[in-house]
Amino acid sequence: MEYDLAIIGGGPAGYTAAEKAAKAGMKVVLFEKDELGGVCLNEGCIPTKALLSCAKHYSSALEGATFGVRCEGVEADFAKMQERKIRTVRRLAGGVKARMRDAGVEVVRAQAVVRWPGAIEAGGDTYGFKRLLLCTGSSASIPPIPGAFLPDGSLNPAVMTSREALALQEVPDSVAIIGGGVIGMEFASLLSTLGAKVSVVEMLPEILGGFDAEISAMLRGIYARRGVDFHLGVKVLSIDGGCVNFEGGSVTAQRVLISTGRRPNLGGIDIPGLKTVRGVEVDSHMRTSVSGVYAAGDITGFSMLAHTASREAEVAVNDMLGVADEMNYDAVPGVVYTSPEVAFVGKRLEDAGDGAKVLSLPMAWSGRFVAENGDITGLCKLVLDKDGKVVGAHMLGTPCSEIIPTVGVAISAGMTAESLQKVIFPHPSVAEIIRETITAQLEKPCV
Amino acid sequence: MEYDLAIIGGGPAGYTAAEKAAKAGMKVVLFEKDELGGVCLNEGCIPTKALLSCAKHYSSALEGATFGVRCEGVEADFAKMQERKIRTVRRLAGGVKARMRDAGVEVVRAQAVVRWPGAIEAGGDTYGFKRLLLCTGSSASIPPIPGAFLPDGSLNPAVMTSREALALQEVPDSVAIIGGGVIGMEFASLLSTLGAKVSVVEMLPEILGGFDAEISAMLRGIYARRGVDFHLGVKVLSIDGGCVNFEGGSVTAQRVLISTGRRPNLGGIDIPGLKTVRGVEVDSHMRTSVSGVYAAGDITGFSMLAHTASREAEVAVNDMLGVADEMNYDAVPGVVYTSPEVAFVGKRLEDAGDGAKVLSLPMAWSGRFVAENGDITGLCKLVLDKDGKVVGAHMLGTPCSEIIPTVGVAISAGMTAESLQKVIFPHPSVAEIIRETITAQLEKPCV
Repeated sequence: MEYDLAIIGGGPAGYTAAEKAAKAGMKVVLFEKDELGGVCLNEGCIPTKALLSCAKHYSSALEGATFGVRCEGVEADFAKMQERKIRTVRRLAGGVKARMRDAGVEVVRAQAVVRWPGAIEAGGDTYGFKRLLLCTGSSASIPPIPGAFLPDGSLNPAVMTSREALALQEVPDSVAIIGGGVIGMEFASLLSTLGAKVSVVEMLPEILGGFDAEISAMLRGIYARRGVDFHLGVKVLSIDGGCVNFEGGSVTAQRVLISTGRRPNLGGIDIPGLKTVRGVEVDSHMRTSVSGVYAAGDITGFSMLAHTASREAEVAVNDMLGVADEMNYDAVPGVVYTSPEVAFVGKRLEDAGDGAKVLSLPMAWSGRFVAENGDITGLCKLVLDKDGKVVGAHMLGTPCSEIIPTVGVAISAGMTAESLQKVIFPHPSVAEIIRETITAQLEKPCV
Repeated sequence: MEYDLAIIGGGPAGYTAAEKAAKAGMKVVLFEKDELGGVCLNEGCIPTKALLSCAKHYSSALEGATFGVRCEGVEADFAKMQERKIRTVRRLAGGVKARMRDAGVEVVRAQAVVRWPGAIEAGGDTYGFKRLLLCTGSSASIPPIPGAFLPDGSLNPAVMTSREALALQEVPDSVAIIGGGVIGMEFASLLSTLGAKVSVVEMLPEILGGFDAEISAMLRGIYARRGVDFHLGVKVLSIDGGCVNFEGGSVTAQRVLISTGRRPNLGGIDIPGLKTVRGVEVDSHMRTSVSGVYAAGDITGFSMLAHTASREAEVAVNDMLGVADEMNYDAVPGVVYTSPEVAFVGKRLEDAGDGAKVLSLPMAWSGRFVAENGDITGLCKLVLDKDGKVVGAHMLGTPCSEIIPTVGVAISAGMTAESLQKVIFPHPSVAEIIRETITAQLEKPCV
C-alpha cells in the first residue's frame, strides 16, 4: 500500500498534520505506538491541567470564607481527582480519534520502523510512502545522577518523572523536585496545594529559566510564602533513597520528582543523511536534510511545546501542498499553570535588541483582578523594540494564560504599543492591564 | 480661578480625561457630586463583579464533589459578600483618588452647574474654564409602568433598580426582573446562584438584545435548566406590589428589579446651542456642537460602556492637545458576566455586509475548556467580511471576557482569518478555540 504521506507519531504535530493533509486530499497513514494525542494529551498538558483545575477548586473551598462562602471539613479526594483526569483525557482522546476517522486518516497503532527509502514497517505490515513526517516527540530524560537508578539498572523506587507523578494514587507527604522549570513548578503547585511538603532543587540561579527573571522570582516568592522550599543555583550530587544531596545541603522526601528536561525520541528512525543536532534539524518549512522528509514538534529538540508542534505541522503540510507558509518563532507563547499563572509571548528585554524597553504595571491596576484576587501579587510587563513595536509580554496573574494571545496577535500583526493602546478592552477585565500598562507609561507631558 | 479644562463627572471618562490632560500639562478641575469612579466603580461593573466572583466561589464549593473536593454544609454568607464588595470598591476608589492627586487634578466634590460661557458654579464657588468636557454619565431609568411608583410619587417598595439591588442586605426569596439585558442577566445569575427564585420578563423575543441571538438563546437555555423562568416577547402592563402583570400572564415575587435601560444625565448642563438626540451629540473627536465643549461616555447616549467612555475621553483630550486621533467603534467589546460568560466584539453577521460569513465551533474543542468545565455548553463564532477579514467574534464560555480582546486586536489590526490562524496560541488554553475555529473551517480540499 502506497501513501502520499506517512506520519510517525500521533501527538499534536502528528494528528494536526494528518487531518490537514487528508482534508486536502492526500492519502495519509499515521503510526502511533501508544495512544493518539501524544504526551500532551495522555501524560502532559491535559492531565496536568485537569488535576490543577481540581486543586484550584480545593483552594477555592479552603479560602471560601474570604469570599463569603461557609463550608466545613474541606478535604481533597485525590482518587476522585484522578478519576476526573482520566475522564477528561478519555473524552479528548475520543475527539482526536473522531477527527482522524472523519478526515479519512488511516491510523496504525504500532511501533513504526523506517525502512529507507520509501517504506515503514509496523505491526508486521509494510507501508509505502511518498513523503514522511517525523513527529515522534520527546521523553522525560533522567540525567546521570548517582542513585537515580539502582545498581541493577532499575529506577530508584522513590524517583519518578512527570509521567509517574501524574499517575500517583496518593499525594505523598513530601516531594523533592529536581528541576524548577515549567513542569517542576506545576507539580510543586499541584502537590503543595494538596498538602505535600515540597522542596525544589534547581541548578540555575532562578526557577523557570528562559522566562522573565523578575516574574520568576515573584512566583517563587509566592510559593515560598506557602511553604515550598527552594534551593537555587545548586547542582544535585546524588540521590540516596528519597534523599537528594546537593552542593551544600540535602533534602529528604518520600518521593523525588526529576523534571530536568526532555529528550527527542529518535529510535526507529534510521534515515541515511538525516542531520540531527539537539534533535532532527529542520529549515523554516520543516524540511529535514533529506528530501521528502519533514519533522515537527519535540523531535526537533527546539521549542518543545504542543502549540509550536501543531503550527510546525501545518507549515510542513503547506510546504507539501505548495501553499506559501513559513515558521515564525517571534510570537511563541509559554505558560506555567501555577496559581497564579505565569505566561509570556515573544521576547524578553535582554533579547529585544538595542534601544528596547519595558513597560510594567502591577496587576492590581485592574479592577477585576482586585475583585477576584484581592491581595495576590501580579505583574504585567510589555517589551517594546527601539521603534516602539510590541515584541514581548510577560505576565504573572491568573488568567494570563488566556490573555497572553492578545499580545501574540499584536506581535504577529506588527503593532506598535501606541496602536495597541487604542484598542478598546472590555472593562472590567484582567486583560485591560495590557492597555493600562501602555497608557500609564507612554503618556508624556507635551506642553 | 481659570482652568484649561473643566470636567463634569468623575466616572471612567472623567478620571481618564483628567489624568491624561493633567499629565500633558493642562490645568484641570474635575467636578463629582458623589464618589470618584462613577457608576462603574461605585454601583455598576465593579461591585457586580465583586459579588459575582463571590457567587462563583459558592458554586465552586457546591459542585466540589465533581472536582474531587469534599466539603459539608456549604452556605452563602451574603453579608460577608457585601463586605468584600465594599472593600473592593473602597480599594479601587482609593486608587482613582491617588491617580488624580498624583496627576495634579483639582477634584471638587460638589454638584456642578454650568454658567455659560466660561464658568461653572459648584459648592458656592465659581470656576472659569477654557474647555469643558461633559461626562455626567447616566442613571437607571424606570419606564412609566403603572404601579412602579405609588400614588404619592414614591417608588413602590418592592421595586428596585440595579443600584438598590447591589445594596441588598439579604438575598430575596424571589425576584422578578423586568428587562433581560446585560444588567438583568447578571442579576439573574447572581441572585439565582445565591438561592432566589428568579423570573425574567423581556419585551424582545430574546434576552440580550444586540448580542448574537444564537448565543443569547444558549445562555437562556443554561439558566432555564437552573430554574430561572423566562417570559419573552411580552410587554409589562403593570406592577402591583411584587406582582408583575404582563401580556398573557403574571409573576409574583418578593422584589422586582427594573433593568430596562439607562438615560443620560443632562441636569445642570444648560449650554446654548448644545445639540442632544439620545444624549449629547458628538463627532468622531468627541466635539459637541458647541466650540470648546466635548462630551464622552454615557452622556452621549450611545455605547454606554465604561471602556468606550475611557477611550472617548482619550480621544477628546487628544483633540484638545492637537494629537491626531479619532473614535472607531468597529471593535467595541461587550461582556455579560454570567456563568458561563458571554462576550462579543465588533459586528454580528447581520451587520457585516454582503458576502459575510460565520465560522463557529463548540468550546468543547478546547482541551482546557473540557478539563475545567466538563459538560458545560460553549460556543465560539467568528464573523468574516466578504474579503475574509475578521470583523466580529461572539463567544459563550468562561473566561471569554478575557479572550475576546484577542479578536479585538485582530480586528483593529485589520487581520484576515487566514493570518489570525497563523498566530500561535498557548496550549492548552480556552483562547485557542479562536484559532481552531478558523482551522476547522477554512481548510478546504485543494487536490
